[in-house]
Order: sequence, then C-alpha cells, then structure tokens
Amino acid sequence: MSKLQYSVSISLDGFVAGPDQSLDNPLGVGGQLLHEWMRERAAWRDAVGLEGGVTNASTAVLDRDDEQVGAVIMGRSMFGGGSGPWGDDPWKGWWGENPPQHLPVFVLTHYARPRLDCEGGTSFEFVTGGIDAALRLARADADGKDVTVPGGGTVARQYLAAGLLDEIQLHLVPVLLGDGVRLFDDKELAGTRVEQVDVVEAPAVTHIRYRMRR
Amino acid sequence: MSKLQYSVSISLDGFVAGPDQSLDNPLGVGGQLLHEWMRERAAWRDAVGLEGGVTNASTAVLDRDDEQVGAVIMGRSMFGGGSGPWGDDPWKGWWGENPPQHLPVFVLTHYARPRLDCEGGTSFEFVTGGIDAALRLARADADGKDVTVPGGGTVARQYLAAGLLDEIQLHLVPVLLGDGVRLFDDKELAGTRVEQVDVVEAPAVTHIRYRMRR
Repeated sequence: MSKLQYSVSISLDGFVAGPDQSLDNPLGVGGQLLHEWMRERAAWRDAVGLEGGVTNASTAVLDRDDEQVGAVIMGRSMFGGGSGPWGDDPWKGWWGENPPQHLPVFVLTHYARPRLDCEGGTSFEFVTGGIDAALRLARADADGKDVTVPGGGTVARQYLAAGLLDEIQLHLVPVLLGDGVRLFDDKELAGTRVEQVDVVEAPAVTHIRYRMRR
Repeated sequence: MSKLQYSVSISLDGFVAGPDQSLDNPLGVGGQLLHEWMRERAAWRDAVGLEGGVTNASTAVLDRDDEQVGAVIMGRSMFGGGSGPWGDDPWKGWWGENPPQHLPVFVLTHYARPRLDCEGGTSFEFVTGGIDAALRLARADADGKDVTVPGGGTVARQYLAAGLLDEIQLHLVPVLLGDGVRLFDDKELAGTRVEQVDVVEAPAVTHIRYRMRR
C-alpha cells in the first residue's frame, strides 16, 4: 500500500519554519537555516541543476525518498501563489522552469486553475476538493509508490488529524530558531505514540523516521 | 575543564514536560511518557535499587554520564519542596532515603535550609545565591568531572541565557504530548547554532549530544 509521508526539517527547539511567514517568505525569518544541510548535498544540487556538492550519510536518505516517492502534496504557500484568485498571467510558483520535484505535485488551494506542466517531468495540479481528494489523486498518479507532504506543517497537520498520515521523516537540525511554526502543536494529540523506525546520523543533521500507530 | 551539561528527555513535538506542572506533579500531565525509555534500563533500575531491566544501546549513554558527571544542579520543583519556607520537619524531596543520583546535588531555591545527606552518597545542598553560585559550588564538588542539569528546562534555560551551558544531551522520545513545557522557548535564541556531536539510536529513543558554540 502506498504510504503517506510527512518529510520536514526541524530545529532543535522544535520549529519547522521561522516567524513572520508570508507568501513572499514561506520559510519565515531564519527558516533557511533548516535547509542548509540539504543545499550542500550532491543529490539536491543535481535535482535543481547545480553542479558539485557532497555525498554523505544524508545521501542514502534522500536517495530512498527519490526511489520510494511517486507524488507530492503541498499547500499553496509552498507552491507560491500571490493572494486572491489566479490572474490572467498566473504566477508559476517558486520553482522556475524546471522544478526539483520531477514528479506530479498536487497543490491544495481554494482557487481552481488549469494544470501546469513544467520541464523535467514536474506537473502542478490544483486541487480544490480538500485533503481527501488530493490524496486520492496523488495516489492514483504515484504508480504504487509513496506520497510525500514536505514542509511547513499546515497540510501535514490536517492529514495527521484525519488519521491519514503513515510516516514522519524528521530532519533534526542543530540550530535554534527561537520562534516560528511548531511541529503539529495540537493538544488533541496528547499521548499519541509513534514508532521510531530508523535513525541516520549525518553531518549537521539527524534523520529519524517514525511510523504512526493505528 | 569540567563541562556544564543539560540532559533532557523531549517529545517528538518538542515538550520536556507535560502541561499543568505543579510541585505535586513536576512532570506535568503525560510527562511520565518521556521517561519510560529510562525506567526499563538495567542501569537506572540498579541506581534506584530495583532488579532486572534491559541492556541496550541506551546503556552506553547512561554509563557515559555515570562516568563523566560529578555533580548535579536542579531546581526546587525537581527536588520537591512544598510551598513557602521550609518548616521544622522539612520535606525531603521526591527521592526517598536512597536517592538515585549518588552525587552531590545543588538545589536552586529562595529559601535557605541545612544540607541534607542521604544514603548512597547523595547530598542536597540548598543554594540561594543564584545560578553562578550553584555552578561554582557544583564544580568544586565535581572533582574535575562534569556538572549536569537534568529536567524541565527552567534552570537549563537560565544557564543557556547566561552563556554557561556547554552541552545538551537530548533523549528524543517517539511520543506526542500536545501541550506542556517547551525546550528553551526563547526568542532571543534565534539563529543560535549548536554542533551535533554524536547520535545513538536505541529502542524507543534517540540520544543526541550537542555542543554549544561560543
């Protein structure tokens, strides 16, 4: 069965994004510190068309995702979108002409717009039917592989609350953000036990995979 | 040089104690879930006079602390203390006749009281002179070994803010508490980088040691 995975970088003090998030700055103030570990990796640099980079213990974690993940679900702020309905010349998101996903991406939004096909195999489909519809569409396109929800937590929180999340891939980064968006932050989750599946120590990041218990 | 270490169990959603902490319930609601990994360990059971228990990857982490730590600093709520000044028959804390520390313990408090000597080599010294005085006393008694601050974060936060903390030993537990006391939770810390020193994967817990950068 195709799993639904939430993959997120988190600070030592528990933030998945910095404060003052906006559509112009979806990572929030200081949020880029959470992603430094990834920017040096050869796999990531290759995916965004840059040369060089290092190969280390993180590589296997990213490679595993590349192999096992067949579709992506994200919120509108991660796609990038401007405010209000899409205009005549709609914003194409943060990702440029050749986005790094190289997969079908499903964007949760209140505003319908036509599918956007990019270079390198990435497509953006805009889903107005909510999280269930997005997951159904993503699974259909994932070709038996897993579906991943990257990022800031708003979308993952909805899937977790609905009991639809199977795994959490945490990238724990040795930095303190002091303020920002917390992982989950939901009193209803008190006492929820998850299963620690595997731990990978890598330079300047620890990768931990958890399985939700049903 | 003797290091000052903060050692703490933390939930996946970033809590070091549950909500509604009180002198009667210093771990807060659900806070005991953070310490289950330790209660099964043979080393811990031996320290509190219980038999049995398991030996696994956590054992080396606890053994290392046993070898390297020479004194403990804690807050009054971790000692246990009742409210107001100490009475004629002062409360001896949570720890019973033979406390598990087997070390000199320095308790930060506003109320002076005589030193308490217990079985098994544990002593409680009550320090009213603040965190600098407590650290000076603890280092003097630690015999060249490290000083550790366990627990709920109030004391560790003060040492961190004063730039006196050298290491953080995190025990990351696969449970969600939903609410409670956050690690540090201080906007002044934004952008603080720490160094990830080592990672130990153990059953139902991941131990990560960080070094503060000066």
